[in-house]
Amino acid sequence: MNKSTLIEQIKTKASYLCVGLDPDINKIPKHLLSEEDPILAFNKAIIDATKDYCVAYKPNIAFYEALGPKGWKTLEQTLAYIPNTHFTIADAKRGDIGNTSKLYARAFFESMSFDSITVAPYMGEDSVTPFLDFEGKWVIVLGLTSNKGSQDFQTIEDKAGKPLYKEVLAKVASWGTTEDTMFVVGATHPEEFKEVRAVVPNHFLLIPGVGAQGGDLNLVSKYALNDEVGVLINSSRGIIYAGNGTDFAEKAKAEAQKLQLGMQDILKTRGII
Amino acid sequence: MNKSTLIEQIKTKASYLCVGLDPDINKIPKHLLSEEDPILAFNKAIIDATKDYCVAYKPNIAFYEALGPKGWKTLEQTLAYIPNTHFTIADAKRGDIGNTSKLYARAFFESMSFDSITVAPYMGEDSVTPFLDFEGKWVIVLGLTSNKGSQDFQTIEDKAGKPLYKEVLAKVASWGTTEDTMFVVGATHPEEFKEVRAVVPNHFLLIPGVGAQGGDLNLVSKYALNDEVGVLINSSRGIIYAGNGTDFAEKAKAEAQKLQLGMQDILKTRGII
Repeated sequence: MNKSTLIEQIKTKASYLCVGLDPDINKIPKHLLSEEDPILAFNKAIIDATKDYCVAYKPNIAFYEALGPKGWKTLEQTLAYIPNTHFTIADAKRGDIGNTSKLYARAFFESMSFDSITVAPYMGEDSVTPFLDFEGKWVIVLGLTSNKGSQDFQTIEDKAGKPLYKEVLAKVASWGTTEDTMFVVGATHPEEFKEVRAVVPNHFLLIPGVGAQGGDLNLVSKYALNDEVGVLINSSRGIIYAGNGTDFAEKAKAEAQKLQLGMQDILKTRGII
Repeated sequence: MNKSTLIEQIKTKASYLCVGLDPDINKIPKHLLSEEDPILAFNKAIIDATKDYCVAYKPNIAFYEALGPKGWKTLEQTLAYIPNTHFTIADAKRGDIGNTSKLYARAFFESMSFDSITVAPYMGEDSVTPFLDFEGKWVIVLGLTSNKGSQDFQTIEDKAGKPLYKEVLAKVASWGTTEDTMFVVGATHPEEFKEVRAVVPNHFLLIPGVGAQGGDLNLVSKYALNDEVGVLINSSRGIIYAGNGTDFAEKAKAEAQKLQLGMQDILKTRGII
């Protein structure tokens, strides 16, 4: 999916919500365990319940990989079930030397047809650029993450006082364009979005951490939105585990709708819709 | 496999060679393509041919992931075929927030029974420590990699002039012990091993880049070995693609043996065996 289509979808739905499909067999409603593939049944119900309120889905690959070969089949079937109006993100945080990153790109962009994949920047240019060789596909590089450990290395300052994550944003931005590169910036650092936007004003940002991790939608949107929206806000646990009974899908729907309505207000206030 | 067993294996075989099992369907000998699972047939032949000369095998997960669900089956069958005298490394370069890293750990340590997994450090402590909760298992964290892109971020110096990779070595070393943590340090930077050893004198180092990537066995060993050996040197393409005909396994064997003999000399010279 290209940038203009993504923006169009956001405007049409008045939503920049991404739903994280991170299904844990120990957390999904018990009544689904009798299904042939409980995880797939869960994902399908979540997708049906939330698709009108979100523009993207982000399966975290760990949750499928943990299930072995059958988990990959579930992932493929989940991806096939997502409407093609929705942007899809393989949250894989891959990254390896060039010839190996190319294989990961083929796995997620060709064998499966994800629109994008998250990538860790530590190994540098030749670990990232192989993902840019696929027309209409995106690489989403970790900038400043939402976890506690983000403070271990990402905020180390160089001699000029520039933290590592800003160097990552600047350098990675120079390898691609705003049409093929996004960045992960965690919602738990709302005050830092100003600084992020000073480095990458026009890139889309994928923002995890709203919900279970404590980020605030209004505060984050205030600092992170640009004139082309430029953000996808992800919520995983806050939506998919909103309920744990037979009404889990309705509860998930209500949570997704609540976030969408908040986003609609923000988009209207900013004059974007 | 614990540290003392690994060292014992190294001394018994007079080898600290790790063979990278990175099978590419476009590169393996053509006569294997008629096999039911050509990749598995290739891996089995390589393992049979090299097991007497190496102490570890390192499948790079990308090569299996690129094949979809059947690739994961091939990976599991490959792992099962590796003798339990050999240390196994899932070269996955994973890393995510805590609850997700835990799932990756379960996937590679429990669902499959790898001895170790490579992990990218960018997301910090809570992305690494979940891998340390498994008795007898190892995390192998990227320090200074062997690719060109290693110069993009890993060598950025902080205010005190310390490059990022040294901060990674020091900080990660403080989260675990020399019994559960190793580091990846590329063979293409032999002069930097002195500095690496100043930070982590006692940790095992996994050293890729000997062979196809240009690293030199003697030079690397000179700087990187410690009194307990402390290194695993990986060769992938240089061994597994040494030949391309029906004699590919013999060619691979010859390459592995050549490296092993070099290592034997070095171990003898150093008085370790």
